[in-house]
Amino acid sequence: MAKPLNVGMIGYGFMGKAHTNAYCQVNHFFDLAYRPVLKAVCARSADKAKPFADQWGYESVETDWRKLIQRKDIDLIDICTPNNTHAEIAIAAAQAGKMILCEKPLAMSGPEGLKMVEAVEKAGVANMVWYNYRRVPAVTLAKQIIDQGTLGHIFHYRAKFLQDWTISSQVPVGGQALWRLDSSVAGSGVTGDLLAHCIDTALWLNGPIDTVSGMTETFIKERPGALSGQPEQVRIDDASAFLARFANGSLATFEATRYARGHKALYTFEINGENGSIAWDLHDLHRLQFFEYSGDGRLRGWRSIHVTEKEHPYMENWWVPGLQIGYEHTFIHQIADFLRGLAENTQPEPTFKDALKTEKVIDAVLISAKTGSWMRCE
Amino acid sequence: MAKPLNVGMIGYGFMGKAHTNAYCQVNHFFDLAYRPVLKAVCARSADKAKPFADQWGYESVETDWRKLIQRKDIDLIDICTPNNTHAEIAIAAAQAGKMILCEKPLAMSGPEGLKMVEAVEKAGVANMVWYNYRRVPAVTLAKQIIDQGTLGHIFHYRAKFLQDWTISSQVPVGGQALWRLDSSVAGSGVTGDLLAHCIDTALWLNGPIDTVSGMTETFIKERPGALSGQPEQVRIDDASAFLARFANGSLATFEATRYARGHKALYTFEINGENGSIAWDLHDLHRLQFFEYSGDGRLRGWRSIHVTEKEHPYMENWWVPGLQIGYEHTFIHQIADFLRGLAENTQPEPTFKDALKTEKVIDAVLISAKTGSWMRCE
Amino acid sequence: MAKPLNVGMIGYGFMGKAHTNAYCQVNHFFDLAYRPVLKAVCARSADKAKPFADQWGYESVETDWRKLIQRKDIDLIDICTPNNTHAEIAIAAAQAGKMILCEKPLAMSGPEGLKMVEAVEKAGVANMVWYNYRRVPAVTLAKQIIDQGTLGHIFHYRAKFLQDWTISSQVPVGGQALWRLDSSVAGSGVTGDLLAHCIDTALWLNGPIDTVSGMTETFIKERPGALSGQPEQVRIDDASAFLARFANGSLATFEATRYARGHKALYTFEINGENGSIAWDLHDLHRLQFFEYSGDGRLRGWRSIHVTEKEHPYMENWWVPGLQIGYEHTFIHQIADFLRGLAENTQPEPTFKDALKTEKVIDAVLISAKTGSWMRCE
Amino acid sequence: MAKPLNVGMIGYGFMGKAHTNAYCQVNHFFDLAYRPVLKAVCARSADKAKPFADQWGYESVETDWRKLIQRKDIDLIDICTPNNTHAEIAIAAAQAGKMILCEKPLAMSGPEGLKMVEAVEKAGVANMVWYNYRRVPAVTLAKQIIDQGTLGHIFHYRAKFLQDWTISSQVPVGGQALWRLDSSVAGSGVTGDLLAHCIDTALWLNGPIDTVSGMTETFIKERPGALSGQPEQVRIDDASAFLARFANGSLATFEATRYARGHKALYTFEINGENGSIAWDLHDLHRLQFFEYSGDGRLRGWRSIHVTEKEHPYMENWWVPGLQIGYEHTFIHQIADFLRGLAENTQPEPTFKDALKTEKVIDAVLISAKTGSWMRCE
Repeated sequence: MAKPLNVGMIGYGFMGKAHTNAYCQVNHFFDLAYRPVLKAVCARSADKAKPFADQWGYESVETDWRKLIQRKDIDLIDICTPNNTHAEIAIAAAQAGKMILCEKPLAMSGPEGLKMVEAVEKAGVANMVWYNYRRVPAVTLAKQIIDQGTLGHIFHYRAKFLQDWTISSQVPVGGQALWRLDSSVAGSGVTGDLLAHCIDTALWLNGPIDTVSGMTETFIKERPGALSGQPEQVRIDDASAFLARFANGSLATFEATRYARGHKALYTFEINGENGSIAWDLHDLHRLQFFEYSGDGRLRGWRSIHVTEKEHPYMENWWVPGLQIGYEHTFIHQIADFLRGLAENTQPEPTFKDALKTEKVIDAVLISAKTGSWMRCE
Repeated sequence: MAKPLNVGMIGYGFMGKAHTNAYCQVNHFFDLAYRPVLKAVCARSADKAKPFADQWGYESVETDWRKLIQRKDIDLIDICTPNNTHAEIAIAAAQAGKMILCEKPLAMSGPEGLKMVEAVEKAGVANMVWYNYRRVPAVTLAKQIIDQGTLGHIFHYRAKFLQDWTISSQVPVGGQALWRLDSSVAGSGVTGDLLAHCIDTALWLNGPIDTVSGMTETFIKERPGALSGQPEQVRIDDASAFLARFANGSLATFEATRYARGHKALYTFEINGENGSIAWDLHDLHRLQFFEYSGDGRLRGWRSIHVTEKEHPYMENWWVPGLQIGYEHTFIHQIADFLRGLAENTQPEPTFKDALKTEKVIDAVLISAKTGSWMRCE
Repeated sequence: MAKPLNVGMIGYGFMGKAHTNAYCQVNHFFDLAYRPVLKAVCARSADKAKPFADQWGYESVETDWRKLIQRKDIDLIDICTPNNTHAEIAIAAAQAGKMILCEKPLAMSGPEGLKMVEAVEKAGVANMVWYNYRRVPAVTLAKQIIDQGTLGHIFHYRAKFLQDWTISSQVPVGGQALWRLDSSVAGSGVTGDLLAHCIDTALWLNGPIDTVSGMTETFIKERPGALSGQPEQVRIDDASAFLARFANGSLATFEATRYARGHKALYTFEINGENGSIAWDLHDLHRLQFFEYSGDGRLRGWRSIHVTEKEHPYMENWWVPGLQIGYEHTFIHQIADFLRGLAENTQPEPTFKDALKTEKVIDAVLISAKTGSWMRCE
Repeated sequence: MAKPLNVGMIGYGFMGKAHTNAYCQVNHFFDLAYRPVLKAVCARSADKAKPFADQWGYESVETDWRKLIQRKDIDLIDICTPNNTHAEIAIAAAQAGKMILCEKPLAMSGPEGLKMVEAVEKAGVANMVWYNYRRVPAVTLAKQIIDQGTLGHIFHYRAKFLQDWTISSQVPVGGQALWRLDSSVAGSGVTGDLLAHCIDTALWLNGPIDTVSGMTETFIKERPGALSGQPEQVRIDDASAFLARFANGSLATFEATRYARGHKALYTFEINGENGSIAWDLHDLHRLQFFEYSGDGRLRGWRSIHVTEKEHPYMENWWVPGLQIGYEHTFIHQIADFLRGLAENTQPEPTFKDALKTEKVIDAVLISAKTGSWMRCE
C-alpha cells in the first residue's frame, strides 16, 4: 500500500485545480510507493477556500500560509499563488523543512529566484517547478529522440506561444482573476507567463542560451482597473519576441503574445538538426511531427505521430492506442515522476535550480528589450 | 451537498476503469445534485476485484453479481462485462429495481435487446447505454448545428471506424482479454463493436436508417486459442461495410475493420447537407470540421473548430480555451448528464430503447452480408 | 530534333483545352523523339472552333470530324467530345489508321467499349484513354510503392469523388455546357463521370474487381431544360456508391456525388495493406500520405510526402524541390508517356482495352443499383 | 489580335525557364491586348543558349547582352542573370529605352538599387521586378482581405523561408549553378535570396518597416570551390533572422535558412489583426488559412480556403473549382498583369522603386547583424 504524502496547497485558482486534480488522479493510473493526501488548502478567504476544499476533498482549510507551513502533518507545500508571493512562501517553507512544488515562473526575477534556490538547497528539501509541458507525452518523446542523437548537429530552434484573450481594451487589469496584467504581481507580462514555458522546454531540449536580442510591446496602454474602477496604466508586456544563440551554435527565434487572433494557447516549437527535425503544437498536443532524413528519398516526409501507443512516454498508464489524453494529464505525469523520485531518492527536473536558468533568460530578454542591445544570459 | 448515489460495478476491465474514473471525477468538475459513491465492484475472481477496488476506492467486493443486485445499499448497477452477459444481468437488475448503466452494445441481438428494454420499462428504472462518443464536445456540437437546421436538407452520411490491432495472425482468440474475437461472447466482430458506435451516432444525428446492404469478411480464419492452446476457427467478422438509405432520403456508407494499418481508433463521420457539411475524427477528437455555404464566396472553406471554448458543450467545466481534453472525459460527461437527469427527472439518451435501434441495424447488416440482399432495419 | 506528330483534335471544351495545353507544353519540359503539331481542331460550328484555333495555334479548322479523319496530314485523333460520340468517331478513326487518344470514359457501356477495343486492335493503331489521374506524381508514386510489395497483403481499398456543383435545383440539364446531366449524351451521371476515375485508379493499383453491390440516387428529379426551357426529367445518377470485392481478397467502398457541400473535386483513395497504407487526395494532389509499419514503434506515423523531389515520378522535369505542380500537368505527363511509347514501340496504359475493364465495373454497378443484387464484373 | 511585344531574355537558367514558360502560356489563358514574342535569348555561351532557344522557340541567340539591348526589334529586356549583373544591364537597357523585367532581388544593395530606379525613371520605361509570390492566388486573396480592412488593427506579422539544400558540407561554392553561395555574385546569402521574398510580401501586405534587429550565421565556413577545386571560405549568410517593427505599430519576426531539415521551400507568413488572421504556406500554395472573429462563438475556427474558385484572383482563367495550379503560374499571372498594364497605361507592382524598399530592409538587417544594434530601414 502506498505511503501517504500530506499535501498543503496554497491557492485555489486555475492552477490549484490543475494540481489538485493531479493529486487525486495519480494513483489511479500510476503504480507508486507514495500517494498524495489532500491535507489542507490555504487561502486568505476561508469563504473561498472552503467550497474548494469540499469539492476536492481537502481535509482542512487554512487562511494563513505561515500557519500551514508550520503544521507538523504537512509534508509538501504546493505554491499556486501569484508570482510575487512565490519567493517568500518558498523560502519559509524550505526553512520549515517542507518539500516544495512551485507553480511557474519560479520568481519575479533571477536574483529573487537565486535566493529560493539557495533556500531549498540549504534546507535539502525536494523541490520542483510546474513547467508541466515537459510531461506532454509528445514533448517527452521529442526529448528522447533528441537525446538519442537522431537529429545530429542542431541548427535551429523556434518557439511561439500565441493567445488572443486580451485584444479587447475592456479586459481589466488587476484584481484576483486578472493579476496577470498587473506588473507588480506578475512581474512581467507574456515574457514571464508564456515565454517562460517556451524557454524552459528549449533549455531542456537544446541546452543553454548564450545571448538574446529582445523586443516587447504594450499594445493597450491603459485599461479599466478591476479594483479601482478607474483607468490604469498597463505596465506589463503584451507581446515579446527575441532572437537567441544557443551554446551549441544553433540560432533561435522566440515569440509570445496575447494579441494573435484565432490562437488560444498555440504553444509550438520546432527544432532542425542535420539529420532530422521535430515540431510540436499544444493545440494538438497528442501529436508529434517528425522528419527523418534517411532511407528511400521518394518516401521521406514529415510524419504525424499519434502519441498514444504503449511505447510512448506515460501512455501505457492510460487507455489504448488511438485514444488521446489532454492538458490535465501533464500535471499527473509530473507528480507521478515526483513521487517516483521520492521513492528512488532522485530529484526529477525541473528543480528550482533548473527553473532559475529560465529566469535568467527572461531577465536578459527584458533588459535587451529596454536597451536595444544583445544581452548575455547570466 | 450532493446526495450519494451508490454504484455497484460489474466488471473491472478497460471499461470498468473508464466508468469508475468518470464516477470519481464527475463532481470535481460538474456541479450536481448527486454524487456517485463507489459502493462495490463485482467480479468472479476476488483476487482480481480486490486490487481494482483498492486502486479506485470501492468500499467492498462481490464475486456474484446476483448478490450485488440484491444489496439494499446499491442504487445503480453498471454493467461492464462482455456482451453475452448484458441481458441476463440487466433484466435481473431491473427486476430488483436498480438503475442500470450498460456498456455498449446493448445486447447480442435485437430480440435480446428488446427483452432488456421491456424489463427496464416494466420496472420503471433509469437506464442508459454507454455510447460515450455522443459526449465528445465536438460531436455534441455537431448535433447542435444539425438541430439548428444549419445544414439544410441532408444528402450524405459516411462513417468509418478503422483499427489495425488484429492484423497479426498470432493474436489469439478468446479468453478474458480477447473475448472480442470470440463470437459466442461478443456476438459479432467489428459490426457490434465498432460499427455499433458509428450507427448510434448516425441515428442520433441523422435519424432512422431504412435499408442496408452489407458485406463482411474474416481475413484470418484460424487463430491460436487463448485458452485451448489449439488453433481455433474465427467466427467473428474482421471487417464490415454497408450501404444505407436513411428515412430522410440521404445515402450513406459505413465501414469498420481491425485491418487498416496505421489507424488505431480512427472513428470518423461526415454529413453533407444542402447548406453545409460537418466532419469529425476521433484521432483529433477536440476538433470539429465545419463548412458553411454562405457569405463571400472567396472566403468559404472548411474551418477547423478547436472545441475548447466556454460556449462549447461541456467545456466551461474544464480548463481554459486552447487546452484540450481527451477520451476519458466523454464518460464523465455522460455520467454528469445522467446525474442531472436524475435531479430533473428526465431520461438522458441513449436509453436502452434508443440503443435497441442500433441493434436492429446491426442485425440487418449481418443478415444482408450473409444473404447478399438489401434488408430493412426492423 | 523531335519528329512532328500531327494532331487532329475533335472538341474544344474543357478537355480540348487541357489536352491542347499538354501538346503545347510537353516538349518544353520533356526530352522526346516526337513533338505534337497542332494541325487541326474540329467542331460543328466553325465560329467556335476558329477562336480556339487562334488562341492555341491550330493550323486549321474542320467542321466535320469524318473529313478530319480522312486527312492525310493527320497522325493522331484526340476525341474530346461528349461520351455518346466516342465510339463512332473512334471506330472510324481506327479504320482510317489513325492513332487515337480518347477522353474518358471510353464508352456509353461495356458492349460499346468492346467494339472500340476490337476496332483499334484490328487496325493496330496506338490508343490510349485520358484517365489523367494515374499521372499525378503522387499517384504514380503510390503505384511504385505498391508494385515494390511494400504494403504486403492488401485488406482494404476505399475511394470517393465528391463534388457539390449540382446542389441547386436551378442548374439546368442538357445543352452544350451541361451535357453531363443529360443521360442520352453522358450515359450515366456520376458513375461514368467520377466513379470512372476511381475505378480506373483502383484497377491499376489493386487489380480486378470481382463483385459489386451498388446504390444510386437522383436527388433532384426535375430541372429546367437548357434547350427546351421546360422542366425536364433528370435521368442520370446524382450520387452513386458501391461495395466491392477485389480478386485479391480485399474489400472496398466507392462513392461519388455532386451533392457533397464543401467539396469541389475531392477525389480520394486509400489502400491498407499488412505492412503499410497509402492515402491520396486530389485537393492536395502534390502530397502522398504514407504509413509504414516498421522500425521503432515510437516513431511510426503517417508521413506527408511532398512529392516535388527529383526522385519522384515526372518531377525532375519540372522545378526544384518544394515547388508544386497542379492539375494540368497530369495531361502533360500522359502525352509525354505516349510519345515515349511511340519512340520505344511500347503501348502506355491505359489503352482502350484497359479502359474497357472500367466500363464493365460501371455497368455492373448500375445494374446492381437497379436490381438490388450483387453483380459480377463481367 | 494581340499586338506583339518582342522579348529579349538574358539568362537561360532556372529563372529563364520560368519566365519563358510564362511568355509562352500567358495568351493561352488570359485575354490580352499584347502577346510576348520570343525574339532572342542571350548568354555568354552560344552552345548553351542555342539548345534553350530551340526548346522554347526563341527566334535568335545573342552572346553579348549589350548587343541585344541595342537591337531595334527588342521591346523588353528580361534580366535573369545573377544578382551582381542586374544593375549594369538594367541601367544600360533603360538608357536604350527598353522596358525591363528584372529577376529579384533588384540589386546587390540599396545604393545600387537606387541607381537602377533613377535610370528607369529617367528613361520613363516600364519596369517590374519578379517577386512572383505576390501573384499566388492565395496571396493575392490575402491582400484583398487586408485591403478591405477585414483584419482591423494589425498586431503581428511573421514570416519564414526554410530550405535544407546546403546542409551537406560537400555542396560546392561558386560556378554557374551555385553562384548563390558566392557572395561576390549573390551579394548576400539567404537574406537577399529568401528573406527578400518575405520582405517584399510583408511590405506589400503590411506597409513599411521602421526598424530591425538582425542575426546571421554561416554554419559551414569552408566548402569545395566549384571552379578552383580547392577549399574556399564561405562568405554568404547561411541563415538570417530579424525582429522588426512596422510603421503601423505591429511587431514582426522574420527568418530564413537553408539548414532546416525537412523543408524544401517552406515560405510561410501569418498576420494577426484585431478581427482576424491570415496564414499561408508555399508548400500548399493553393490554400489560404483564414480566421474571422465574428458570428457564433461556437463556430469560429481557422478555415482552409481552397483557392480554386472563379471568384478567386486569377482562377477564372484556369480550370474548374477544386483543381489546383502550381508554382509556375505565378509568373504567368505577373506577366499577364504587366501586359494588361501596358494596354491600360498603368504600372503594375512591384516596380523597381517598390523593390528598392526591400533592398533597404535587407541592408539594414545585414548591418544590424554585424553591429548588434537595431537599425532604421533608411
